[in-house]
Amino acid sequence: MEIKFTLLWFSLFTTFSFAKIITPRFPSSIINRPEQLSVSTNDQKGLYKSMFFTQTLDHFNYNPQSYDTFQQRYLINDTYWGGAKNNAPIFVYTGNEGEIEWFAQNTGFMFETAPSFRALLIFIEHRFYGQSMPFGGDKNIAYKNSSTLGYLSSTQALADYATLIIDLKKNLSATDSPVVVFGGSYGGMLAAWFRLKYPHVTIGALSSSSPILLFENISSPYAFNNIITQDFRSESENCYKVIKGSWQQIEDIANQPGGLEVLRKSFRICENYISASSLEGWLQTAYIYTAMTDYPTPSNFLNPMPAYPIRQMCKAIDDPTTGNDPFGKLYEAAVVYYNYTGEAGQCFDLADNSDPHGLGGWNWQACTEMIMPTDGNNEESIFPASTWNYSDRVSVCQQIFNIEPRPTWITTEFGFHDIKMALKRFGSNIIFFNGLRDPWSGGGVLKNLSKSIVAIVAKEGAHHVDLRFSTREDPEWLVDVRRREINIITKWLSEYYHSLAHHSH
Amino acid sequence: MEIKFTLLWFSLFTTFSFAKIITPRFPSSIINRPEQLSVSTNDQKGLYKSMFFTQTLDHFNYNPQSYDTFQQRYLINDTYWGGAKNNAPIFVYTGNEGEIEWFAQNTGFMFETAPSFRALLIFIEHRFYGQSMPFGGDKNIAYKNSSTLGYLSSTQALADYATLIIDLKKNLSATDSPVVVFGGSYGGMLAAWFRLKYPHVTIGALSSSSPILLFENISSPYAFNNIITQDFRSESENCYKVIKGSWQQIEDIANQPGGLEVLRKSFRICENYISASSLEGWLQTAYIYTAMTDYPTPSNFLNPMPAYPIRQMCKAIDDPTTGNDPFGKLYEAAVVYYNYTGEAGQCFDLADNSDPHGLGGWNWQACTEMIMPTDGNNEESIFPASTWNYSDRVSVCQQIFNIEPRPTWITTEFGFHDIKMALKRFGSNIIFFNGLRDPWSGGGVLKNLSKSIVAIVAKEGAHHVDLRFSTREDPEWLVDVRRREINIITKWLSEYYHSLAHHSH
Repeated sequence: MEIKFTLLWFSLFTTFSFAKIITPRFPSSIINRPEQLSVSTNDQKGLYKSMFFTQTLDHFNYNPQSYDTFQQRYLINDTYWGGAKNNAPIFVYTGNEGEIEWFAQNTGFMFETAPSFRALLIFIEHRFYGQSMPFGGDKNIAYKNSSTLGYLSSTQALADYATLIIDLKKNLSATDSPVVVFGGSYGGMLAAWFRLKYPHVTIGALSSSSPILLFENISSPYAFNNIITQDFRSESENCYKVIKGSWQQIEDIANQPGGLEVLRKSFRICENYISASSLEGWLQTAYIYTAMTDYPTPSNFLNPMPAYPIRQMCKAIDDPTTGNDPFGKLYEAAVVYYNYTGEAGQCFDLADNSDPHGLGGWNWQACTEMIMPTDGNNEESIFPASTWNYSDRVSVCQQIFNIEPRPTWITTEFGFHDIKMALKRFGSNIIFFNGLRDPWSGGGVLKNLSKSIVAIVAKEGAHHVDLRFSTREDPEWLVDVRRREINIITKWLSEYYHSLAHHSH
Repeated sequence: MEIKFTLLWFSLFTTFSFAKIITPRFPSSIINRPEQLSVSTNDQKGLYKSMFFTQTLDHFNYNPQSYDTFQQRYLINDTYWGGAKNNAPIFVYTGNEGEIEWFAQNTGFMFETAPSFRALLIFIEHRFYGQSMPFGGDKNIAYKNSSTLGYLSSTQALADYATLIIDLKKNLSATDSPVVVFGGSYGGMLAAWFRLKYPHVTIGALSSSSPILLFENISSPYAFNNIITQDFRSESENCYKVIKGSWQQIEDIANQPGGLEVLRKSFRICENYISASSLEGWLQTAYIYTAMTDYPTPSNFLNPMPAYPIRQMCKAIDDPTTGNDPFGKLYEAAVVYYNYTGEAGQCFDLADNSDPHGLGGWNWQACTEMIMPTDGNNEESIFPASTWNYSDRVSVCQQIFNIEPRPTWITTEFGFHDIKMALKRFGSNIIFFNGLRDPWSGGGVLKNLSKSIVAIVAKEGAHHVDLRFSTREDPEWLVDVRRREINIITKWLSEYYHSLAHHSH
C-alpha cells in the first residue's frame, strides 16, 4: 500500500494542503461552511482599528522595482497605552501567513496583559497576505508568478516590521518606548528572528510554538508525526490502532467495484468528487490539525472544537455502542474536527478549495525557503510509513512555480545548527514556548539556551495555547505558563527602564 | 567665497571623489602614476591563492533573476592552518569597496598572527568590486545602470560572506572550526555587522576604524573635518592658518586675469585642465587622505608616504628657508602626499580619473544606503565653512543614477541609535578599534558597550593602523594595541573551545 501524501504537511500551520494546488485531492472543508470563522474586513469587537503603512517592496536591493511601495495593514489598540510621555511599552505581533485579524483574534494574551503593562497593541500583517498585497493591492497580480511572488520572503517581512515599528514610534514621539514582539507558529519564528536580527528595535520576544529547528537535518523528519501518533496513543491504544489500520482498509475497499461509493456514503462525501487518496487526505487533515489544536478548553481556531478534541475523537472510535463498523467510527471522529457544531451542510466536499484565512501564500514560502521536513513516518506511525524526500518537493515546486527551493538559506541566515553554541554568549531575551502535544514542538527549542533565552515547555500544551484568550476553565498549568511569561516580560521591561534612567542620549 | 566641495567626502575611504563622475573637477592622481601601488591580478608575494565561489545574486528574493549567480573571488592562505581535525580557527577578512588583494596586502595583522593561532586565512572580495562582478563578470554590464547595480548593497554582501563561509567550512570538513572576522573601514563596519547578524557563523569580530555611528544624526557632521583640523593644528598653529587662509587666496588669484596660469605654474598642474575648485579639491584630497593615513611609520596604502606625514606637510609649510610664497609652501605640502618618492611625472593632471584599486562602486553605495554626513565645516575648520546638506546628495544621485537614497535604511537594519541601550544586554565579542587622528574616528565606537563589546582607542592612531604589517619602528602604543587585540581574540577562542568540549551535537 502506498499512499501519496508526501506533500500533505507542506502547509505549515494551515488548514489546507499544498497538494490542492496540484490536484483537488485534499480539501478540508465542507459545503455551507459555517460563517463564524470568516474574518470580516471590518474591525471586530472593537478590539482594534485597521491602519495602513506605505511599505517598501524590496529593502535589500536598489533596482528600480525595489522602490515600489505597497500598503501594509496593521491593527492598533491604544485603549490601555500609558503613552509616549511615560515611555509605556508597545507590544507588537509579528504577523504570520494569513489575515492578520485572524491572528489578532486568537492572541488574547496580548489583549489581556495590555492593561497591567499599559501597553499599546500592534498587529502587523505579513506582506502578501490579507490586505497587505504588493503590486497595487491586487492579489491576482501579486500571486501571478515568481516575478511578483519573489518578494514574498521572511527577510523582507522582518525588514517590513522594523521599518514600520521605527516609523510608528517616531510618529507617536515614542522612540524610548520599549517594544516587545509576540508571535505564534511561523509568527513565532519571525518574533524570535526579529529579536535576533533587530535587537535595536525590540527588547525581547515571546516566540510561541515556533518550529525553528525544523530545517535541514537539525530535527528528525519523523518528529512531527511521532508526536501525533503519541497524542492519540496516549488517549487510547485501540484508537491509535483503529486509525493506523484504516488506511489499508480504505485502499482495499476503494479497489473493489462500488467501493468508493461505500466510502462516500460512510463519510458523507459529496457527489462531485471522491478518491481513496483524497479521502485519506481529508482524514489526515482532521487528525493533524486536531493534534495541533488539542486545547484544554473549547476553541475555534481552525474549526470550532470541544476541549481536548483528540480525546473526543478517540471516544467516538472506542465507543462500544456504535458496533463494529470502522468507517462509521472514523466518520464520527472526523466530525469532531469538521462538524462539531453540527452546522455543516448535507455533505463534505473533497474538491472544496476555499481558504477563509487567506493562507495560500504559504505554498510559495514552502517552495522557496521554508523547507521543513515533517512528513517522515516510521513503522510505529499512526500514518503509513514513509520517508521525507526532498527531491519530491523540488519536482512539485518546479511544476507549480517553476522554481528551485533554497533549502539551506534559513539556516544560513538565521542559524540554529548548534544553536546552543551560537547563542550561549550571544543574544538575550527570548522565550520559546512549546506544548508537547503539538506536533510542531518536534522542531521547537525545548531547553534554555542561556540565562535569558529560555524555554517554557508544557507537557499538556498544544499549538501556541499560551497566546489564546484565557477562559475560566483553563487548567492550572496553563495559568502558570502565562504567569511565567508575564514575569519574564516584566523583568525585561524593568531592566530596560533601569538602563534608560541611567542612560544619556 | 563659496567653494563647492559638498560632494568631496562622498567617497568614504577612497582616493578619489564622487564629484569626478559629474565633472572632472577633482582628480587626485598624477601623470605617470608610479606602478608600485597597482595590484596585479596574479597572486603576490606568495601571500595567498585566488579562488572563486559560485554566489547567488539575490539572497532575499526569489524572482527569476535572483537565481543568477556570479563568481566571487576569495584569497586563501593555509600555510599556518592547524587543520579541520584540530578545529583550528579560520580568520576571515570581510572585504570592502575595492580589489580584495589591495586590502589583503594592507592587513598584515592577519598574516602575522596566523602562525601562533594556527589560523586559516580567507579574504573575501565584496560583490561588484575587483573580479567579483555579477552579470557574467562583465563590469560594463554590472555597472550599466540601477537595474544591475541595484544588487550592490551591504546586506547582500553580508549574506554572500555567510554563504561562502558556511560552504567553505563544509568543504573543508571544518564545521567546528571557529571563525573570527576582521575588517577595516567599510570592511570593519561589515565585520561588526556580520558578528551582529550572523553570530552562528562567526564567534567574534575585529572592527577597525569603522565609522559605524556616522549615519543620520548619531554623530556630528562636523566631526570628520574637526579631526582633520585638529590633526594639523596639533602639529603647528601656523601650518593650520596657512592652509585655512589659502582657499581665499586661491579664489582671489584665480579671479585675476592670468591668475589660473600662475596657479598652474605654482602647483605644476598639467596644461589640459585647471580651475580654482579643481585645484582646491586636489589640495583637500591631499590633506584628508594624509590625515587618514597619518601613520607612525612610512607606508604605502593610498600613496607612498613618510612616517607622520602631516608633520612633514607642516614642516614644508613652516619652513623659514622657502620664503613667503604661500603657494610654493602649499605645493611642497601637497607633494608629501602626491609625490613623496619623487617618481611623479612632469605635471599633475587634474582631469585624471584613474582608479587603481577599483573603488568606483562606492559612488553607488553613497547614493543608496551609505549616507554618512561628513562634510560640515564650522568656523574653526581648516576648510571653508559649510553645512552638510542632504538635499545636495539627493540631487546628485538623481542626476547620476536616477536614484533616491534611503538615508534611514542602515540604522533600520543595523541600529546604532542608542547603541549602548541596544547592545548592553545583547551581542558579544566585538572589538572596535579607532585611532583618534583618523577623521573617521568621529563616527566610531569609542567606549565599551558591554563586557565583551569593547572599544580600543589609540590617541596617536590613524585609519586601521592596527591591521597593517608591523615594522621595527612601530611605537609602543601600537604594539600594545595589537597585543590587546590578540589577547581578546585568544579569549574568544578559548571560550569557544571550552564550550565545544562540553557540547554534544
